[in-house]
Amino acid sequence: MQVKVALCQMKVEDNKKRNLQRAQKMIKEAAEQGAQMVMLPEMFNCPYDINCFRPYAEKLPQGETVYMLAEMAREKQIYLIGGSIPELDDDENLYNTCLIFNPEGKLLGKHRKIHLFDVQVKNGISFKESKVLKGGNNITVVATSFGKIGVMICFDIRFPELCRIMAMEGAGMIFVPAAFNMTTGPAHWETLFKSRALDNQVFVLGNSPARNEAASYIAYGHSLAVDPWGQIIAKASEDERLLLVELNLAEIEEARTAIPIWKQRRTDLYRVSKL
Amino acid sequence: MQVKVALCQMKVEDNKKRNLQRAQKMIKEAAEQGAQMVMLPEMFNCPYDINCFRPYAEKLPQGETVYMLAEMAREKQIYLIGGSIPELDDDENLYNTCLIFNPEGKLLGKHRKIHLFDVQVKNGISFKESKVLKGGNNITVVATSFGKIGVMICFDIRFPELCRIMAMEGAGMIFVPAAFNMTTGPAHWETLFKSRALDNQVFVLGNSPARNEAASYIAYGHSLAVDPWGQIIAKASEDERLLLVELNLAEIEEARTAIPIWKQRRTDLYRVSKL
Repeated sequence: MQVKVALCQMKVEDNKKRNLQRAQKMIKEAAEQGAQMVMLPEMFNCPYDINCFRPYAEKLPQGETVYMLAEMAREKQIYLIGGSIPELDDDENLYNTCLIFNPEGKLLGKHRKIHLFDVQVKNGISFKESKVLKGGNNITVVATSFGKIGVMICFDIRFPELCRIMAMEGAGMIFVPAAFNMTTGPAHWETLFKSRALDNQVFVLGNSPARNEAASYIAYGHSLAVDPWGQIIAKASEDERLLLVELNLAEIEEARTAIPIWKQRRTDLYRVSKL
Repeated sequence: MQVKVALCQMKVEDNKKRNLQRAQKMIKEAAEQGAQMVMLPEMFNCPYDINCFRPYAEKLPQGETVYMLAEMAREKQIYLIGGSIPELDDDENLYNTCLIFNPEGKLLGKHRKIHLFDVQVKNGISFKESKVLKGGNNITVVATSFGKIGVMICFDIRFPELCRIMAMEGAGMIFVPAAFNMTTGPAHWETLFKSRALDNQVFVLGNSPARNEAASYIAYGHSLAVDPWGQIIAKASEDERLLLVELNLAEIEEARTAIPIWKQRRTDLYRVSKL
């Protein structure tokens, strides 16, 4: 089975309306080019800045971003992995949340970023999401007509347990809205995506915002798709770009036949489990 | 703390005596150049060929290879991670085994390759270690004066659980005698080493034999050392070569301070454990 996936590497500004317009435009374009699954980047409606998360946040399910995403999925009959947005819950807690819609515009699932981005690299990036956000508590795998998919957000990818568990639960494609930066992007972005794909023999797709040099946090860009053999099969640069890629899902089984790690895992010696 | 490590990327032939002589020569040279820990490649005394494993095998602790390794470690006062050799147990079972000696020439530990190399890549490599070998049943971490080290062999590196558990047990350096080939080497070698180092914020060192085009199984070469930031800090080509690298062990804590994944792991949501 083949599936055409679009990654919307869109530029995010300090203007919610314009961000939503741009996202909508790219989703439409993706659908017109035949995409069956479309992804947006992390925090696509809001600058990646802890001071912006609360003013830009929406409650579910009534927010304007949520409405736009549902409408787009339904109108274009696509699976939509809606990047992420700041989500406000009823207790006024904030999360970094990805909403996943099916081609009927129905919310299939949501992923709240589990691992918050708290880092302090000497002479590099410093950031502390946990100042304003709470972490999610669920590993997110949902069923689609192209098989199960897993969703995680950005820093979540640094924890190999997550992807392992998603693959164990049957996910063949992992969607990762993300916004690496100019420190960790060049150093780690490709290695992380390639290794999760290779170790688990799944497709892993990363969708970054385009680079915006005017932003307080400069995203690395370089959205990419990696196949179950660990090869990058599509890659953007740092500019705004709609990246289309056709995945041949048969490659999952081909990789697993060639190097049968899923049969060879020594489950008598070690265990990875969801709690 | 600094430690000088030598990787002996030696050419392995179908001649045990010459293999032992070459290994001995490289170990001596490494020690003369100040190496405090020296590694040899997978199956350094024997061609990587399932028809050779039994005729080249030795029983522990009395074999000639074992004797040479212990002598070299003691004479040169080095830690010696003795690549691997075919080991014959008292029931005539064969293993792919790494022997680890301390600077007194005492056997610190041994690692029997856990995951046997059984692969069948279309238009690429086919191999079936399990035709003649048995897999080991232990995850190997031993204490040295440079901190705990983990040892695994080649195909073991494809299973991220192993490195994770070793790091959880306190290993700061992972030694991997290995012999990737001309299919999986170009495709996966660097990604696997970089990702294990990056995910666990440890040093990971891979020691391949030099490429021998005359052999039935052609090793990829490209022995390498990766630091806890996931960067390759030393790398050989395919030729015979003694690769020396100085590791600054403080970088382990530096990486863990910069990106504190060991504190951020959500052990309330998932678990990796040794059984």
